[in-house]
Amino acid sequence: MRFDRFFVLQPDDAIAYAKERGFFPVDAELESEEIGDGNINYVFRLRDRRSGRSLIIKQGGETARISDAFRITPDRVRIEYEMLKRYNELAPGLVPEVYAYDEVMHAFAMEDLSRLSIMRRALMEHRKLPHFVEHITTFLVQTLFYTTDIAMDPKEKKALVQRYINPDLCEITEDLVYTEPFTDAKRRNDPYPPNREWIERMIYGDGELRREVAKLKWQFMTEAQALIHGDLHTGSIFVDERETKVIDPEFAFFGPIGYDVGNVVANLMFAWANAEATMEDEAARLDYLHWLEQAIAGVVDRFRAKFLAAWHQDARDPLARGIGVAEDYVDRVIVDSAGVTGLELARRIIGLAHVKDITSISDPEKRLKAERTLLRAAKVFIIDRYRHLDGSAFVVTLKTAHREEEKAEKRM
Amino acid sequence: MRFDRFFVLQPDDAIAYAKERGFFPVDAELESEEIGDGNINYVFRLRDRRSGRSLIIKQGGETARISDAFRITPDRVRIEYEMLKRYNELAPGLVPEVYAYDEVMHAFAMEDLSRLSIMRRALMEHRKLPHFVEHITTFLVQTLFYTTDIAMDPKEKKALVQRYINPDLCEITEDLVYTEPFTDAKRRNDPYPPNREWIERMIYGDGELRREVAKLKWQFMTEAQALIHGDLHTGSIFVDERETKVIDPEFAFFGPIGYDVGNVVANLMFAWANAEATMEDEAARLDYLHWLEQAIAGVVDRFRAKFLAAWHQDARDPLARGIGVAEDYVDRVIVDSAGVTGLELARRIIGLAHVKDITSISDPEKRLKAERTLLRAAKVFIIDRYRHLDGSAFVVTLKTAHREEEKAEKRM
Repeated sequence: MRFDRFFVLQPDDAIAYAKERGFFPVDAELESEEIGDGNINYVFRLRDRRSGRSLIIKQGGETARISDAFRITPDRVRIEYEMLKRYNELAPGLVPEVYAYDEVMHAFAMEDLSRLSIMRRALMEHRKLPHFVEHITTFLVQTLFYTTDIAMDPKEKKALVQRYINPDLCEITEDLVYTEPFTDAKRRNDPYPPNREWIERMIYGDGELRREVAKLKWQFMTEAQALIHGDLHTGSIFVDERETKVIDPEFAFFGPIGYDVGNVVANLMFAWANAEATMEDEAARLDYLHWLEQAIAGVVDRFRAKFLAAWHQDARDPLARGIGVAEDYVDRVIVDSAGVTGLELARRIIGLAHVKDITSISDPEKRLKAERTLLRAAKVFIIDRYRHLDGSAFVVTLKTAHREEEKAEKRM
Repeated sequence: MRFDRFFVLQPDDAIAYAKERGFFPVDAELESEEIGDGNINYVFRLRDRRSGRSLIIKQGGETARISDAFRITPDRVRIEYEMLKRYNELAPGLVPEVYAYDEVMHAFAMEDLSRLSIMRRALMEHRKLPHFVEHITTFLVQTLFYTTDIAMDPKEKKALVQRYINPDLCEITEDLVYTEPFTDAKRRNDPYPPNREWIERMIYGDGELRREVAKLKWQFMTEAQALIHGDLHTGSIFVDERETKVIDPEFAFFGPIGYDVGNVVANLMFAWANAEATMEDEAARLDYLHWLEQAIAGVVDRFRAKFLAAWHQDARDPLARGIGVAEDYVDRVIVDSAGVTGLELARRIIGLAHVKDITSISDPEKRLKAERTLLRAAKVFIIDRYRHLDGSAFVVTLKTAHREEEKAEKRM
């Protein structure tokens, strides 16, 4: 009754809403908490004190929660819901269950994952995740390969392209990831002040870097390769030692596969830089860095292997079966992933949206070193992306950048 | 009154329709003729005997005119009409005027161009068209550059991408141009019988060729670079010595720019092969071949120059202004155009839809030589497309293929 016109829910409204929608019995003793920590949406956790059963209600406003001036289409909530439904079919067990999308309230209900941790936090606690590489590479291949023209009916795929055109959210990525970190054109960048001068010289001052970024940007804007998640950083993944669950696909659209793969890889590198800067016990640090390096290489190599296996099993395009065709295709995806790895590393350090892995490094010298290491690596990933064809190449670029930054420090 | 439900017009219906829609006065003395020669649509030319004024009515059926079994969305008529309107704004004077789209009858009216000739016919009559290169390169740059993300607002562009998704017509191209000529998978190809064995060996038997075609196919299926015409052969262009008018953009969608450029270039090469095979007077032949070679090189080079000029004047993306950025971009477009040149040459000889330039060569030896020359060139355009960066490279590949075919003939 009360929910036939849109308004932003408060925790008590969420209780009434959940009962009205039949998620809980009318006499349930619900507690409600708003647990959203993003800039845009509202997330309510509802729990029945008697049964212990809990549920999430996610709601998107017509403006961002941080500012009424920032209008953003609520159609993103429809996209997120439909994507999670699709993911449940393509990659069951690797996403939360979802139900009951409501186009009036721009809301839907989903499985409560609070038994798990946000992956970024788990990595900052230096926890190893023994199944993460297998889980995420299965997720990537199942959701990406199977939405390409290689595996789908081309007409069905075009209908999906049309359905998932996502102008508002793509604009955010185009500006924040591809344009601003390399130009500071709108003066929205937010570099760590002690690093500002270095960034102006090494990044804004590099014409070759900007030329390669331009190519990657126009690829992002034009290549409808597969239905990508579009925001697959470690804050969009819940984990524990057994489970992996991907959330928040509101940026989804048909874009280059490498965008998702590169985001996973780059965010493992933020964890690497965090561990390198903050773990004082050397043996523990080296052990954890080694685990992360294996995870970085593993994401690339297991993605490649599973992608090829899926191709050989399920490619339906008549031209897909020739010798070397699948390998050429996946090589290019890995190269694209390297480019995106560099972009994500750079934009999280230079641009508006930072990551806690880096901002939480309290020693200014160590933070500076971590940032410059990753920015050196970012330039190599972008400019020399064609050299990155397997997982070890990604790790080598990271570790080489680390050694170069150490040498540069000593010279100063 | 009679036109409130769809039916396929007959010439007399077209008269009643034109009067009812107010294109002519009710007492006009109209003559009506169905002049369509394609496989899909109906084209009526209406002329008022008293005033001499004439008009075209174009109608698309819900099935193709060649077969009721071949269902094809009438939405293509909407796309064609909207494209011609858009072209009138982007490239005024280079397309017919259009009016009065009717979504019930799947019809619209357009300027009568019967004062002009279909370009394929003009070239087969070995007429020189002194303004064609300038006109078509202006058309290409105005319609293509100005619908890229470089020149358009990215959100407006995405809305157009959504509006011009064209699954039925794209499927025709994907099958007829990209898949069948290189695999004969559905056994729909229609090679000239004396050439069948040679084609099986040289084309179907070439795995490297098929691998490169696969890359070009997936580029066609995924790269929403600009709003392309999608069928820009010399049968879609009206000409005389002063005018050039592009028609028939029903295949339009957001695809790779090189698809349009390559189609123009390849169809000039069919004219070249026709002139080479059929002009008996040597001086006249060499003179005409030379004009065609200049036209081929001119399309590539003038396109490139005008594209760069438009970029430097109107690029709005902040990353578009760096040194070498525009040149890198247009180089890739020219390389794509070379690939498409090869595809169009091959598919018109091997596939279902032939061109009169070749099928009208009555001497079997000369037809065989023309076909093999163009197929040799096609392989080079596809496999070595990266070597084709300016107009002279395109002409060299054509003439080298011609010499190689002459040598191969002598050895036999």
